[in-house]
Amino acid sequence: MGSDSAVTAPGAVVLASGGMDSCVCAALAMRDYATPNPPALLHVDYGQRTEARERQAFNALADHYRIARRLVAACPGLAAIGGSALTDATIPVPAAAPAPGEIPVTYVPFRNAHFLALAVSWAEVLGAKVILIGAVEPDSSGYPDCRPAYYAAFNRLIATGTRHGDIEVRTPLIAMRKAAIIRLGLELSAPLHLSWSCYQGSDRACGECDSCRLRLQAFAEAGVPDPAPYR
Amino acid sequence: MGSDSAVTAPGAVVLASGGMDSCVCAALAMRDYATPNPPALLHVDYGQRTEARERQAFNALADHYRIARRLVAACPGLAAIGGSALTDATIPVPAAAPAPGEIPVTYVPFRNAHFLALAVSWAEVLGAKVILIGAVEPDSSGYPDCRPAYYAAFNRLIATGTRHGDIEVRTPLIAMRKAAIIRLGLELSAPLHLSWSCYQGSDRACGECDSCRLRLQAFAEAGVPDPAPYR
Repeated sequence: MGSDSAVTAPGAVVLASGGMDSCVCAALAMRDYATPNPPALLHVDYGQRTEARERQAFNALADHYRIARRLVAACPGLAAIGGSALTDATIPVPAAAPAPGEIPVTYVPFRNAHFLALAVSWAEVLGAKVILIGAVEPDSSGYPDCRPAYYAAFNRLIATGTRHGDIEVRTPLIAMRKAAIIRLGLELSAPLHLSWSCYQGSDRACGECDSCRLRLQAFAEAGVPDPAPYR
Repeated sequence: MGSDSAVTAPGAVVLASGGMDSCVCAALAMRDYATPNPPALLHVDYGQRTEARERQAFNALADHYRIARRLVAACPGLAAIGGSALTDATIPVPAAAPAPGEIPVTYVPFRNAHFLALAVSWAEVLGAKVILIGAVEPDSSGYPDCRPAYYAAFNRLIATGTRHGDIEVRTPLIAMRKAAIIRLGLELSAPLHLSWSCYQGSDRACGECDSCRLRLQAFAEAGVPDPAPYR
């Protein structure tokens, strides 16, 4: 760390699920956070039902940008704790959209704190000063950890709880509607065809879960076809 | 969750490494946080070099208090990230105390955020409203994530990032000197003989690492012999 990391530090640590938002976020990082070194890419395996497919998308994204510094960090505690349709196979993923104001059963309790904690720990070791996450508030599923106030609170936590207190989480997409994210992705030539959003997970997306529904709506709104394969 | 958890919820989720502070913290929880149900005990395996010995101490503590609801959550990401003498076998644990104001190489980057994130996720699923952690500021190793400001920031994060925003981390020992923690432990009949603090880890404590040094100093100050076995 210290003087070493000033030379070897990536321009940012980018959290990437392999979904559409993180694909565009990585494209932004390649444009804006490539100094002194290319961004590092972090994926979290938390025992989610679609992990194998997500990881495939993550690696395809990292390969596309020739990013050498990539890490798949396992977080098996979240699946052991359960309480979500994404990590507990006995809770089905609902096909319908949640009622307005309702937090859906796909909410994984306090999930993004685990993601960000891993990103901060890695950033401290690598010497990176910026963490990017493709969290989005509008058109999202109503998860509490996708709101700007949450990330502001996380940055205050980093300021008090790290070696130098000088790492910052940034959420460049947070206020954007999904259709705008797609348009930004097209402008940046982001490899949207490699991204994966479906909660069911197989070779082809189901087109029916909440995540597919939001994605398809957004592509329709952006006026372009979704390049991902559907059943 | 919801109505179910109001009946089954533990009085608290207690983070326990198996060390002296968490032993006293668990004893406090047994006295003050046993309603509507006994506390739940959480241990984190983050690939630390002494995990096998710590886990033995954790289970002995849970057995002592007949706590059924216990969870050992793995967090292998921290060891994969490294950067600390506790998780990277190539970085030796120093025998000497760190210089004043210096953060020692045993600091695990942003470690307590991982612990607390697991505790919050579990508390959300169990319906617990309180998390106890035996963090201590005085006489500690100078880790940034052992200060009151850090826990205040974490509570603001929970308020914005959870389903109901009604879980609180409490640090009942944070302002206590180690000798006072020992006296409190004796008053509560905490099973201090089962606790384990050494960074080296084997059948007997080394008596020389920073953690042993702080522990032995504290017992000397409290005027009682340390019941743990030393080399």
